[in-house]
Amino acid sequence: MEKKFVVVGLGLIGGSMALALKGFEGFRIVGVDVSQPTLRFAREHGVADEVTENAAEAVEGADVVMLALHPQGILDFLERHRDQFKPGCLVTDVCGVKSAVMAAAECLPEGVDFIGCHPMAGTEFSGVEHAFAGMFRDSHFILTPRETSTPEHLSLMERLAERIGCQDVVRTTPEVHDAILAYTSQMMHIIAVSVCDDPSLFACKGYEGSSFRGCTRVAALDVGLWTQLFSLNAPALVGCLDTLIGNLSAYREAVASGDRAALAAKLAWSADRKRQMDLPGPDLLG
Amino acid sequence: MEKKFVVVGLGLIGGSMALALKGFEGFRIVGVDVSQPTLRFAREHGVADEVTENAAEAVEGADVVMLALHPQGILDFLERHRDQFKPGCLVTDVCGVKSAVMAAAECLPEGVDFIGCHPMAGTEFSGVEHAFAGMFRDSHFILTPRETSTPEHLSLMERLAERIGCQDVVRTTPEVHDAILAYTSQMMHIIAVSVCDDPSLFACKGYEGSSFRGCTRVAALDVGLWTQLFSLNAPALVGCLDTLIGNLSAYREAVASGDRAALAAKLAWSADRKRQMDLPGPDLLG
Repeated sequence: MEKKFVVVGLGLIGGSMALALKGFEGFRIVGVDVSQPTLRFAREHGVADEVTENAAEAVEGADVVMLALHPQGILDFLERHRDQFKPGCLVTDVCGVKSAVMAAAECLPEGVDFIGCHPMAGTEFSGVEHAFAGMFRDSHFILTPRETSTPEHLSLMERLAERIGCQDVVRTTPEVHDAILAYTSQMMHIIAVSVCDDPSLFACKGYEGSSFRGCTRVAALDVGLWTQLFSLNAPALVGCLDTLIGNLSAYREAVASGDRAALAAKLAWSADRKRQMDLPGPDLLG
Repeated sequence: MEKKFVVVGLGLIGGSMALALKGFEGFRIVGVDVSQPTLRFAREHGVADEVTENAAEAVEGADVVMLALHPQGILDFLERHRDQFKPGCLVTDVCGVKSAVMAAAECLPEGVDFIGCHPMAGTEFSGVEHAFAGMFRDSHFILTPRETSTPEHLSLMERLAERIGCQDVVRTTPEVHDAILAYTSQMMHIIAVSVCDDPSLFACKGYEGSSFRGCTRVAALDVGLWTQLFSLNAPALVGCLDTLIGNLSAYREAVASGDRAALAAKLAWSADRKRQMDLPGPDLLG
């Protein structure tokens, strides 16, 4: 019998996931969405093998169900459909916060596995019309399994990561994930919007280079999504912002002091930290 | 007689400029540098038609001299070589601060023109070995001419901008340039180093996405260059940082308050500002 892989939510990430998974290990990819325009677009563009608005029917008999909804949507879906997953089913998600999702997944009956998942990819756009199969290429694929998650399910998720082109699979706890993502992702979005709050924003057109475009690219964010992500991880994010404000204030003082040698020493220290990170930068000139 | 275009300083920007100008309107492109390894590399890779360490000889009889040195190097060069430019010569530069450079250029004798210039391009690397002819493609080309700059020299600079692939030419005053660049460029670099000062930096490897790479790309900066740029524009930069710290603090309060509706409204306001900017983002997935 054909295996069934259900992607719930055909937005930017869910749509890209469905496209990237086409033909994966013989699964039939079924996409679920509540929006008629999204379903129509997905059907016309072959985003999945089948698309439907009937979540209950799609989940029935599914081997894997991946929830690609906004955080609150995931929490609600788990609660509403908890008794419709077949025994042995693997439920997973793509959400940028993990503690709240893993806690909500406790409602699933015994025999239904849950592995938290966060493919670290995205663009500044939303919606299925911006989805593309190459979305996850070279991104990190983070997994937060339960202690009881089966080796078979973990192995399946690792093969899935390889299939969609991720550069590596990182396994961690929901707590560690959320503490680090407050810094590497959520804070970057707060920086971007804060920079755009400057009264000079519109006057600067014609004077921006790649550093400005790189820093503010994500400011035109999906408000509903990011309100939930920030709120569900508020203590960690507030802590990161306090550290950042302290570090910015220290640079403000170093610049204001007029002591060039001290400023140079401080810059050398920070620049060296970045070099040690040896991160492949996005090619901003491409 | 062959016209002579001298590029002083064959670093990342000067080297790229020489490469991009090859064959421009029949000029012979002469590159000047004090570093033997730089001269050797430039010679072996044909970065200019001719390279030399003798600045005085290069400047003699030059029709255009472009100073692609660090800010202090430009100030020193103008002072040292002020009497060696031929009458009618156009002197220009590529520096990221303009008031200090324009003031220093007052030392030039009558008949030697100066047009301040800032091609808004760069990468996170330094040195001639990272130079490439496409560096300036689609970037803004900012000019701060003197009131007395000749139409012929302005026209020459505009043709140069077109030749190296800039998307537009923006003409302004040194004061406006420096006030805006404190925001669009210098502050982006302070943000990048401040983010890297976070104690969590090294623990975050494996958890960074394109927003983190985009924001911190420029943190591994050229310490000498940026110390000078920050110092020569300190009042404007400090003002921008105060505004940013205020905007970040407002977001910190909005996240900490737990009032999701207020946070969403604030995010919607900022995101809408970014959308109104309609900036072509660098393709971080390329």
